[in-house]
Amino acid sequence: MATEIPDIVIGRLPLYLRALTHLAEKGQTTTSSHELGQRLGISSAQIRKDLSHFGEFGKQGTGYHINFLIDQLRHILHLNLVWSIAIVGAGYLGHALAHYQGFEQRGFRVAWVFDNDPQRVGETVNGVEVRHINDMIACLREEHVQMALLAVPTEAAQETADMLIEAGITAILSYAPINLKVPVGVQVQYSDPVVQMQRMTYYLNATAQYPET
Amino acid sequence: MATEIPDIVIGRLPLYLRALTHLAEKGQTTTSSHELGQRLGISSAQIRKDLSHFGEFGKQGTGYHINFLIDQLRHILHLNLVWSIAIVGAGYLGHALAHYQGFEQRGFRVAWVFDNDPQRVGETVNGVEVRHINDMIACLREEHVQMALLAVPTEAAQETADMLIEAGITAILSYAPINLKVPVGVQVQYSDPVVQMQRMTYYLNATAQYPET
Repeated sequence: MATEIPDIVIGRLPLYLRALTHLAEKGQTTTSSHELGQRLGISSAQIRKDLSHFGEFGKQGTGYHINFLIDQLRHILHLNLVWSIAIVGAGYLGHALAHYQGFEQRGFRVAWVFDNDPQRVGETVNGVEVRHINDMIACLREEHVQMALLAVPTEAAQETADMLIEAGITAILSYAPINLKVPVGVQVQYSDPVVQMQRMTYYLNATAQYPET
Repeated sequence: MATEIPDIVIGRLPLYLRALTHLAEKGQTTTSSHELGQRLGISSAQIRKDLSHFGEFGKQGTGYHINFLIDQLRHILHLNLVWSIAIVGAGYLGHALAHYQGFEQRGFRVAWVFDNDPQRVGETVNGVEVRHINDMIACLREEHVQMALLAVPTEAAQETADMLIEAGITAILSYAPINLKVPVGVQVQYSDPVVQMQRMTYYLNATAQYPET
């Protein structure tokens, strides 16, 4: 782990972790870069190269021990603890995220939900009380929360991100379809359904939707 | 465009398109692989290599003409038409997706929303009437819809995906935290906030959340 690992490699590790966890749940104990690659649409050479940044995890012939590799990846990605996360925006999207069934056992816990609508403040969303956004900076600072999901309307996204940064948040997953301006040292990932759909339209038959009649 | 383009290259084109569109909206007319790379965290060499699969878009010294490159990318990704999409599941997530402000002008139109809850059927979500899932196969087949967003509870995800495939859908963006089994020829992308957050925890200080006192 001496030299810096390219971010694109880091970005693939959670995909490996998800695929490995899926195999473990099915009761499988070993796998290969070939099998992982087929599940993920990534070449086996790429997978071996990515993992080699972190040590020797597999053996020629026997492949990877799934549970061992899961442990290693969780360690590398700092998932051997539970990260408290804040959801900002308690509209449809905030509700959907608070109810997301994939957080548990994967390293995250929704600890806070904020909104600026007095009607929503005090409401409980999947066991978490919605707090007013005016309390956000104090709450997050006190608890040293580092991660937030930004689920506010587009026009409020930048100013809300600014508040999160003031609150000490250094990692934001944004659902707004705009590029946020953030200072160096703050990470932003964007969840954008359009980007994922545009990747698929490349392969679709553009004439099938409007067939000649 | 003679040989097959790696899928990982295709997957980056929508990111280039989004960044270029953002620059165009700011009034900029030209850019460079260096500028794009800095915005996206991708090396300029990678960007030039990716785009070179499709032709000669840039010139040494002057860089890329933004509007021209946007047009080319939209053409390559089959976004010079509007794709009708179906949302399955009209819960919090389905509502959030139906209200997403990023579809318009980027090639997609929410044409259908389905749910199995009689209480929700007939309700209007952002101008689209919720139809019963029992009508789904007939509706989507008749309209030759090819893309769907899967926003149903985890336990219903696989059977609903099976129905979508029966309806002729060949591209699914799934929000359920499970791997779907689909036949060859059907594309699936997964939207998983955990995968995006795990990429960021790598860079976070794991001791800061629970400081010693």
